[in-house]
Amino acid sequence: MTEHNNTWIWIDGQWQTHWPSLDRATQYGDGLYETCRLNQQGDMPLWSWHQQRLLHGLVALDFPIDSMQHIEHALAALPKHPYRGLKLLVSRGAGERGYGYQSDWPIHLQLQLFQPPAWGHERYPFGVDTGINDVRLAQQPLLAGIKHNNRLEQVMARARFAPHWQESILLDTQGNVTEGCMSNLYLLEGEQWVTPMLDQAGVNGVIRRWLSQHTPMREERIDLARLHQADAVFMSNALNGFVMVRSVDQMRYDTSIGSVAQRMQQHWQTQLQELWQ
Amino acid sequence: MTEHNNTWIWIDGQWQTHWPSLDRATQYGDGLYETCRLNQQGDMPLWSWHQQRLLHGLVALDFPIDSMQHIEHALAALPKHPYRGLKLLVSRGAGERGYGYQSDWPIHLQLQLFQPPAWGHERYPFGVDTGINDVRLAQQPLLAGIKHNNRLEQVMARARFAPHWQESILLDTQGNVTEGCMSNLYLLEGEQWVTPMLDQAGVNGVIRRWLSQHTPMREERIDLARLHQADAVFMSNALNGFVMVRSVDQMRYDTSIGSVAQRMQQHWQTQLQELWQ
Repeated sequence: MTEHNNTWIWIDGQWQTHWPSLDRATQYGDGLYETCRLNQQGDMPLWSWHQQRLLHGLVALDFPIDSMQHIEHALAALPKHPYRGLKLLVSRGAGERGYGYQSDWPIHLQLQLFQPPAWGHERYPFGVDTGINDVRLAQQPLLAGIKHNNRLEQVMARARFAPHWQESILLDTQGNVTEGCMSNLYLLEGEQWVTPMLDQAGVNGVIRRWLSQHTPMREERIDLARLHQADAVFMSNALNGFVMVRSVDQMRYDTSIGSVAQRMQQHWQTQLQELWQ
Repeated sequence: MTEHNNTWIWIDGQWQTHWPSLDRATQYGDGLYETCRLNQQGDMPLWSWHQQRLLHGLVALDFPIDSMQHIEHALAALPKHPYRGLKLLVSRGAGERGYGYQSDWPIHLQLQLFQPPAWGHERYPFGVDTGINDVRLAQQPLLAGIKHNNRLEQVMARARFAPHWQESILLDTQGNVTEGCMSNLYLLEGEQWVTPMLDQAGVNGVIRRWLSQHTPMREERIDLARLHQADAVFMSNALNGFVMVRSVDQMRYDTSIGSVAQRMQQHWQTQLQELWQ
């Protein structure tokens, strides 16, 4: 069997379902990952943005200096396939017992291929319903921004969604609005875009950085009152794209046809999808 | 091959080196573990203390209600072997994509067998040299105390040891002295034992709870100045046992023969080892 849960997994130049039990991703969450949407040709239009965050993570976690070359080679050697979703997992491999490692241990890679859902705006044409999550994100500047494998906070947060939520908004332990469980977050205040600072917690998403380069965007500390007062709220991730938020608990935003939120969603999602042409 | 890195791994009733790639411990660090010392008969004298923390973790992470029964059955079915170290890893298994899970998914277990090092006091008869680590522990009350698989802070901290350190002392992001990288921490102030509160960060160790039941122990917030002023400092973990701290950076404690530290180490380590008879 080389397929598991509708996912094909490419490891060490073969399709295989298994992975060393002693691998440090398994033992300690000592790894990084990226989840990418592929176009019809199998290319990743936002790869350079994924690569930027991955490099940041590789440096922060002291992975070998040539890790990115290994990753690029593995991606280039991936056989032709019909899938449009790819998760790349980078681990430090299996070493001796304990937390210690040598910084020259070669990385170990998983490339997972799967069929992603439709873009978020197609599934939720009037935006997503959300609420404030009971789980607060810890402040850890050494890991903030990075897409690492220590995801228990997200696992716990996901289990606390109300049944009608499609996403949820996470504050950090100091009460700063930070991100969604699987997404980044944006406020539109008049004509000004604002997104939470991610220096203490959160993942610095691909769409977040892409959008910041295409429209003026302020990074600020945002409290709950300010979230409620925004003219429109949006979320993004690399699989769903760019979607409006219709509600945060009792608070509702105008996402009707012709609203600012609808116009903005259409504008930016269209820009984004042009990359997938 | 059924042995890897001098470790035998028992999974699903067989010795095997591999594990599902999509397992949630591998993807998200969504798991728990315990590392235990076995006696000559293969029993774990402190098992009930391991079990207590494991139960706490299983509940906190919303694992199935019958998980502990599965764990006990797997331990009972483990073949006879000559090893004195066991690491038990509990994962939620491999589910669908994403952070979501069903709370009735059966757990997946790894039982690793290995040869542990000698007790710490035998390897470091005059105590361990340590220093304050550059890595600060994030405050996350939802995960504090539990031995979960999100260990990037410890991995980063371990890489920052000075060459002559055998252990290192971690503060949290608010400056509270919390624990060692692999150990719990104790201060002796006159005749009073004090150990850091672990409600915000840290792992509530087996020896820590055992010791607290055998001698009066205060749990308090401890700052660096207080650590420096202690009459003696000790560390413990389930493999090393109970050891004196000889130095914290420039600060040195009296660990000479006949010192209070030596007498206390001998007293408590002897008590502990009687359990392994």
